[in-house]
Amino acid sequence: MIEHLSTPAFLVDRHIVQRNCDAMRVKAVASGIAFRPHVKTHKTIEVGLMQHGGARGPITVSTLAEAEAFAEAGFRDITYAVPIAPAKLQRAQELASRIDRLNLLIDSEEAFRAMEATEGRRFDVFLKIDCGYHRAGVDPSNPDSLHLALQMARSSRMSFRGLLTHAGHSYNARHLDEVQALAAEESASVSRFRSLLEAEGVRDLVRSIGSTPTASVVDRFTDCDEVRPGNYVFYDAFQATLGSCSVQDAAVSVLTTVVGSYPERNALIVDAGALALSKDTGPDHIEPRFGYGLVCDAGLRPLPMRVAALSQEHGRIEALDTVPVGTRLRIIPNHSCLTAAMFDRYYVIDGQQVVAEWKPVRGW
Amino acid sequence: MIEHLSTPAFLVDRHIVQRNCDAMRVKAVASGIAFRPHVKTHKTIEVGLMQHGGARGPITVSTLAEAEAFAEAGFRDITYAVPIAPAKLQRAQELASRIDRLNLLIDSEEAFRAMEATEGRRFDVFLKIDCGYHRAGVDPSNPDSLHLALQMARSSRMSFRGLLTHAGHSYNARHLDEVQALAAEESASVSRFRSLLEAEGVRDLVRSIGSTPTASVVDRFTDCDEVRPGNYVFYDAFQATLGSCSVQDAAVSVLTTVVGSYPERNALIVDAGALALSKDTGPDHIEPRFGYGLVCDAGLRPLPMRVAALSQEHGRIEALDTVPVGTRLRIIPNHSCLTAAMFDRYYVIDGQQVVAEWKPVRGW
Repeated sequence: MIEHLSTPAFLVDRHIVQRNCDAMRVKAVASGIAFRPHVKTHKTIEVGLMQHGGARGPITVSTLAEAEAFAEAGFRDITYAVPIAPAKLQRAQELASRIDRLNLLIDSEEAFRAMEATEGRRFDVFLKIDCGYHRAGVDPSNPDSLHLALQMARSSRMSFRGLLTHAGHSYNARHLDEVQALAAEESASVSRFRSLLEAEGVRDLVRSIGSTPTASVVDRFTDCDEVRPGNYVFYDAFQATLGSCSVQDAAVSVLTTVVGSYPERNALIVDAGALALSKDTGPDHIEPRFGYGLVCDAGLRPLPMRVAALSQEHGRIEALDTVPVGTRLRIIPNHSCLTAAMFDRYYVIDGQQVVAEWKPVRGW
Repeated sequence: MIEHLSTPAFLVDRHIVQRNCDAMRVKAVASGIAFRPHVKTHKTIEVGLMQHGGARGPITVSTLAEAEAFAEAGFRDITYAVPIAPAKLQRAQELASRIDRLNLLIDSEEAFRAMEATEGRRFDVFLKIDCGYHRAGVDPSNPDSLHLALQMARSSRMSFRGLLTHAGHSYNARHLDEVQALAAEESASVSRFRSLLEAEGVRDLVRSIGSTPTASVVDRFTDCDEVRPGNYVFYDAFQATLGSCSVQDAAVSVLTTVVGSYPERNALIVDAGALALSKDTGPDHIEPRFGYGLVCDAGLRPLPMRVAALSQEHGRIEALDTVPVGTRLRIIPNHSCLTAAMFDRYYVIDGQQVVAEWKPVRGW
C-alpha cells in the first residue's frame, strides 16, 4: 500500500504508463513509420518493453550506460542520440559488436575525422540536423553541412543511415498551434536536407524525428520515416501545461510528507526537496507559474498550492489552508525525466496498491 | 589519470577538501565550541572523517539514510536536521538505540504530539528556530513557540537538548557585510530565545547554528555552543560569488567533453547536462549571471564561457572562441551539494592522478 511507503518516494501508475505507451505506439504503427521510442525518461527495461507492446524493438538512448543495459536485456537495435565524444568510440564499437545495430550521431568534422581514424567494425551513423532548437546539430542551410554529409556517405568507416533531428524548442512554445508549427518544421527540415543529398546521389536515408510535444499534437506522423518520443511514457506537469497531454495523463508523482506547517506565513515544508523533485523550473515562460511541480492530495487531486522553493531536502509550499504535519501529498513533477533520475527505485502502483518496484539505469 | 576517465565524471581534489575541512575544524576548536559538521554535501564516510581530523565526531545529516550509513561506519552522535515526519519516528528510534545520541528536530505541535504518543526509548530533541530564513522553524517572537518549548522541556517522552537554527537566507545575500549581519542575527536569535526559556527555568540548552556562508565569514564563533556548516568541505561557484571562499577553494568539478562545436552560433555542447550538473541556477541574484556553473579548462583555469542551458544530457555553453570537439573542460558547479548527489561515485584526484573512488550515500 502507498500509505506504508517511506517518503519521498517516486510513484508510477502502471495503467497510465500502459495507456501512454499504447497510444503512441498505435499512432506510429498506424502512420506506417518505424517507432524508435526514447528510453531516457524511465531508463527501465520494464517500460522499454511496454513501449513496444512487449517486444524488444528499436530504441533510442541518451547514454552509453543505457545502451549497454538495454543490450544486456536483449534490445538489439539502439540509437545513441547525443553526439558521441571521440573518446567513447571504442566503447561504442564494443557494444555494437554484441547487438544488431548501434546508431551513433555525428554533427562535426572532428567527430567524423575521429571515426575515420578508427579500425575494425564500421559504424552506423546518423547526421544530426538542427531544425531550429539550436542545441546540437548542423545547420541544414549551410553548405558545410552538405559537405559533411557527403563525406559521411563516401566514408569506408561508416554506414550513413539517416538524418536525425529533435524539436526541443517545442518545450518553449506557449500554445498548441506553436507546437504544431514546430512539428511540421521538424520533419520538413530533414526532408529538405534529404532532397539535397538525393540530388547528389545519396539515397535511402532514414528521416528520424521526435520530441514528445511535437509527437503528441499530431494525429499522424507524416513526412518522416521514424519517430523517437520519450517523455510521453510518463508525461508531466510541463507537458500538461504545453497541451501535449492532460494532467490525467501524468503517470508519475512524488509522494511526500508535510514535516512543517506555518499557517502564519502561509507555508508548508515537505520532505521532497531538490534531491527528490530536481530543480527544473518547468514551464516558467507560461503564466501562471506554478513552481516546482503540481501539488496534489494523496488521491492525486490538484490542490491550490505552489512549490515555491526547493533546498536539498526541504520543499517549501505556499498554501492558504492549514495542512497538518504528517499529511501526505503527491507532487506531479515539472519534468518527469529529471525527477525520475533522482530515484534509485520506482514504486509501481495500481490504485493504492504497490504492485512492483523498478530500478532505473544510472550513470553514464 | 584524469585523462582516462569517461565523462561526465565528478572530481574531488583531495588537498583542497583537506584544507577546507581543517580550516573550519580549527576555527571551531579555537572558538571553544562543539563542532557538528553537516555531511549532506559529500555523503561519504571518507569526508566525514576528514571533517573531524580522522575522528568519528558529532555530525549533522539531512536524511535518515545518511544517519544509518554513518552509524554503521561508527559515528555515534548524530543530529537529523530536518523536522521529522511522524511516520519516521519508529525508524529513528531503532537507529537511536544503536548509537549514543540521535538528535531529532521538532518545530510543530503535531510533531510534538506524535512523539508524545510513542513508547520506548526517549527521544533527544532540538527545537528548530526560524532566524529569518522562513523555511522551517518556529517564530521565536511568537508566544506559541515558547509554549511549545516549555511543553518539550516538561515532556517525559523527550530530552530537550537545545535550539537549532540555520541562516539559509545567507545564500541570498549580495555582499559579505550582508552575510556578516545574518551571521550575527543567526546566533543572536537562538540566544534571545534561550534567555526566555531560562527565565522559565529551562537551562543547559545547546545553541546550534550554522550555514556555510555565515560560518565562513566570521573569524571566530561566538554567542553559540555548536556549529553545523556542511558545504564548506567542497565549496562551489555560488559560495565563491558570495565571498564565503575564493574560486581556488572549490574542491570539486565536473569533467566533461565537448561533443559539439558550433562557432557560427558561438556555442558548444558538452556531455554534462542536467543529470550531471543539476539545474541549480546558482547566484542568479548577483550580476553578472554566469549560468549553470563556472567553465574551466582541464587545468581548472576559468574560461570566458557560460553554461547557458542544460537539458538532460546536453550542456550548452556560450563561447566566443572555437573549441574543438573532443576537448575536455571542467565545470565548477554552482551548488556542490546538488551536483555531488547526481553521481554514484566521486573520483578523488591529486593533481592529474586519480587516487581514490568514494561512493556517497544515496536515497532517503
